[in-house]
Amino acid sequence: MQLGLVGLGRMGGPMAARLVKAGHDVVGTDTAPDAAAASRQAGVRVAGSIAALVDLLTPPRAVWVMVQAGAATEAVLDELAELLEPGDLVADGGNSDWRDATTRADRFGARGVQFVDVGVSGGRQGWRHGYGLTAGGAPDDVERLMPVLTSLAAPGAVARVGEHGAGHFVKAVHNAVEYGLLQAYAEGFAMLSARDGLDALTAMRVWQAGCSARSFLLEQTVEALSGDPALTGVGTAVADSGMGRWTAEEAIRLGVATPVLTAALHARFTSRDEQRRADRLLVAARGTIGGHETHV
Amino acid sequence: MQLGLVGLGRMGGPMAARLVKAGHDVVGTDTAPDAAAASRQAGVRVAGSIAALVDLLTPPRAVWVMVQAGAATEAVLDELAELLEPGDLVADGGNSDWRDATTRADRFGARGVQFVDVGVSGGRQGWRHGYGLTAGGAPDDVERLMPVLTSLAAPGAVARVGEHGAGHFVKAVHNAVEYGLLQAYAEGFAMLSARDGLDALTAMRVWQAGCSARSFLLEQTVEALSGDPALTGVGTAVADSGMGRWTAEEAIRLGVATPVLTAALHARFTSRDEQRRADRLLVAARGTIGGHETHV
Amino acid sequence: MQLGLVGLGRMGGPMAARLVKAGHDVVGTDTAPDAAAASRQAGVRVAGSIAALVDLLTPPRAVWVMVQAGAATEAVLDELAELLEPGDLVADGGNSDWRDATTRADRFGARGVQFVDVGVSGGRQGWRHGYGLTAGGAPDDVERLMPVLTSLAAPGAVARVGEHGAGHFVKAVHNAVEYGLLQAYAEGFAMLSARDGLDALTAMRVWQAGCSARSFLLEQTVEALSGDPALTGVGTAVADSGMGRWTAEEAIRLGVATPVLTAALHARFTSRDEQRRADRLLVAARGTIGGHETHV
Amino acid sequence: MQLGLVGLGRMGGPMAARLVKAGHDVVGTDTAPDAAAASRQAGVRVAGSIAALVDLLTPPRAVWVMVQAGAATEAVLDELAELLEPGDLVADGGNSDWRDATTRADRFGARGVQFVDVGVSGGRQGWRHGYGLTAGGAPDDVERLMPVLTSLAAPGAVARVGEHGAGHFVKAVHNAVEYGLLQAYAEGFAMLSARDGLDALTAMRVWQAGCSARSFLLEQTVEALSGDPALTGVGTAVADSGMGRWTAEEAIRLGVATPVLTAALHARFTSRDEQRRADRLLVAARGTIGGHETHV
Repeated sequence: MQLGLVGLGRMGGPMAARLVKAGHDVVGTDTAPDAAAASRQAGVRVAGSIAALVDLLTPPRAVWVMVQAGAATEAVLDELAELLEPGDLVADGGNSDWRDATTRADRFGARGVQFVDVGVSGGRQGWRHGYGLTAGGAPDDVERLMPVLTSLAAPGAVARVGEHGAGHFVKAVHNAVEYGLLQAYAEGFAMLSARDGLDALTAMRVWQAGCSARSFLLEQTVEALSGDPALTGVGTAVADSGMGRWTAEEAIRLGVATPVLTAALHARFTSRDEQRRADRLLVAARGTIGGHETHV
Repeated sequence: MQLGLVGLGRMGGPMAARLVKAGHDVVGTDTAPDAAAASRQAGVRVAGSIAALVDLLTPPRAVWVMVQAGAATEAVLDELAELLEPGDLVADGGNSDWRDATTRADRFGARGVQFVDVGVSGGRQGWRHGYGLTAGGAPDDVERLMPVLTSLAAPGAVARVGEHGAGHFVKAVHNAVEYGLLQAYAEGFAMLSARDGLDALTAMRVWQAGCSARSFLLEQTVEALSGDPALTGVGTAVADSGMGRWTAEEAIRLGVATPVLTAALHARFTSRDEQRRADRLLVAARGTIGGHETHV
Repeated sequence: MQLGLVGLGRMGGPMAARLVKAGHDVVGTDTAPDAAAASRQAGVRVAGSIAALVDLLTPPRAVWVMVQAGAATEAVLDELAELLEPGDLVADGGNSDWRDATTRADRFGARGVQFVDVGVSGGRQGWRHGYGLTAGGAPDDVERLMPVLTSLAAPGAVARVGEHGAGHFVKAVHNAVEYGLLQAYAEGFAMLSARDGLDALTAMRVWQAGCSARSFLLEQTVEALSGDPALTGVGTAVADSGMGRWTAEEAIRLGVATPVLTAALHARFTSRDEQRRADRLLVAARGTIGGHETHV
Repeated sequence: MQLGLVGLGRMGGPMAARLVKAGHDVVGTDTAPDAAAASRQAGVRVAGSIAALVDLLTPPRAVWVMVQAGAATEAVLDELAELLEPGDLVADGGNSDWRDATTRADRFGARGVQFVDVGVSGGRQGWRHGYGLTAGGAPDDVERLMPVLTSLAAPGAVARVGEHGAGHFVKAVHNAVEYGLLQAYAEGFAMLSARDGLDALTAMRVWQAGCSARSFLLEQTVEALSGDPALTGVGTAVADSGMGRWTAEEAIRLGVATPVLTAALHARFTSRDEQRRADRLLVAARGTIGGHETHV
């Protein structure tokens, strides 16, 4: 099918290439000349602007937005709202807050334009093996996108999961789960490393090769360790994205207990804490309380 | 090579069969007639007792113990200590506490018998695809076992990881990590289930088919859910094994922070808590403190 | 000084009585006849409506709102916004979300009316011993309220802590800390109760009488236990208020690690979880993974 | 009554003085000349050695050991076991592991000597206001010590809480609870500090003066902060004692969920973690997993 793709960067570029390879007619655009050039070489028809992209598409159009969540996505959606016509469809494949999807769907819906939110997982590997895709929106609209969704997805890795917002919600929960999984491996690694004479990397390789804890993330972890087993070449400040935070907030709103997912998120906060106020307060308080813990 | 195998049950039976299939001469024994019979059919030479098994083996012998950790393993090792001769070797493949391995190695070493501790992971699937094996002990002793270790292991899934106890230690940490991983999935499932109109099973299938969170454990989880998506056929009391607890204790002893692994363990304790004393105390205390939270 | 008080219920009633006793001229109103009658007996001038209350006050007026946070507070503030005049002042003493204070201050400010948010702690005991009060707003406005703030407060227990919203923010953090403190006692109680032959109540009485862990909350906890040491008369579902949740959300927004405060909140969620989806999933998954944890 | 006191240091010295002041005949000893001299001035009869102390006491003797838990206590108990006679009584007031109390009681019991374990809380302040004391052992033996226990204790702050070990167990749980309480305040302080324009110390002073979160530990915390509000003069490595760890281990052994107490302990481990292996692993793994979280 024909698809407009706004954003040909780290995620959008490989996705466009995968779609072209699968026989789709992809019209793309990107403000970065390099990204545009690379996609052109991969067989994407590149437009010089969003307006030009809309012109190049045959109505009823389908436009996939694959730019940074937040301001960048908002700006693209604003522009598309001006340009698209009744019967057109917009899919947001970025890591947007799912709570925005309903508003956006209403806004586009008022103009007769359909909106679908798609959670996209898979990273760099997705290009080769296919992505994991969860779509939210009206059944007919998701169905209309199915040809490109199927081409993008790894076998079996695509589904409509619910109404507007459900696609991004599932992706957000996925990322929160990912934090939990990675933190579990990281703590396991710390335990292995703390034992004298034990080579943590060797042990984790065995886990990945034949133990129950094997996974894609452990594979990546072992690969990361293999290049720098002492981890001297990396820092200690662990970044976190909006999706993990939104999930933690939603757990609070829903009253769902997520002790491990939330502990993993807070561990990342701690890793970036330079002021260490809580620790300092404890040291100071212990000093004042004084003798009471001295007979250990 | 020739191997004596004490224990032909849920773990030992399939392991014996895998070894026979790989061409090894396996002499086994088990107190359960059914287990013995099944292994005989699989090509294992079955002895009627541990003493008979020792007699059937050509010195220098190698005997693998694959019975329940704790009292059962202790009893078998006691018996072997009486029967084995200098030059023989004992491997403990059960989920024993790694802190026992040093004592056991010393005890056998005093009689000229070698001791190797092997952490074995893989469960029911290990029989077909191979196990994950981490061995602790003297390099020469582990090397001597390598033919059977290699036949048992999935490709690349075997290594000597350190001195006596290291093999079981790595398995213990592995299991603790597994608790963390499973808890992360369980909390993700709870979040997915809490959203109206979202089918959690469908979402988790996509995760497994193409998302970064895919893993052996998620595959098993999806399989479990597929048979009973509403989970009405299962209880709520989550068991835990010694290995997860020993790891949590060791983290405390070493002063290694493992917030997620430990939270996962405590979540299992909570799941089995029928008295709910902490919760009751909070309800009672809030009642006494009274009005102070009423203007919410 | 003269103060209008909207809300003479569980919190507002005793506060009004304390103010009258301190010599202030309190004009109050409440939709519940009982509350109004009780306050009248305590010396409060009771008005039949908010409009009547505003009429009874001499400009420039000061009106304190002490009703349930959320819709009730919003409705009272709406009505006051219509009735008050430039130079008047409104204080919100309820457990409102501090994030609403700025909007409210702007809205009243546009009409020349000042707004102060006051976090009020102390519950039933506050009436006798005084409350803890943290005020947010312009220094002059807080100063103007100081006569009533001082009369309400326990010695030393009143301060302006910052701009609009700061008063409610400090109260919210206070309540989140309170959850953490109570959870610590509850877990300590569970530990004491788990030991054979140990009387937990006796031990906690000693703590309160002379140990470092003594506190107002422990005093209340011991009182609650004294009446029902086996806690058979209470349920297990621990409620939580908006303030604890808002603090947990703000920790996420600010990226401040609060592992204990957040764990205490999630423990309350767990206490109210009747579906037990996460636990059920773990039980089901363990069943499928099967034998792998059986050699414990 | 007459009491022998081995250890006149930071804890034992003030306790001896308090006992003398209450009219008891205290015979003390300490290897440090300064400690001995200070106690002599306070009215303690100071012996030059444990043997001399035993000689000075009239049988049946009561000897209280107040030295560092672990090796120091063990050495004193060894010496006393040689010197004491049937009918004598030994009390261990140090922060000993409660799991040692049973063994010690048996050992002394075999010689006809009674053993009582006493958990002592109160620190520097205990000298003035009295300590909190929880005793474990036979009812008659605790009763025999009651005159000194009562003189040492704050009003109401003494009780026999169970058999051998119960006294130290209650103290251990107390200290674990204390970690939880302090961590809750520390996290609250971090939240208050993270808000622009808010003075955390002022807010915490109000909490202590009149809010539900007031406590001895908050009083100490506020005092610590008052001297150094920016906490520039203290480090970030928070120490922890054996008692908090033993409690966390026992929770695991008993299967009692203590998420907050354990999280507080692990937060201290994190505060002292200089290698940051878990954090580094996460940074490295995220780098390898690559693009997948970039579309935030």
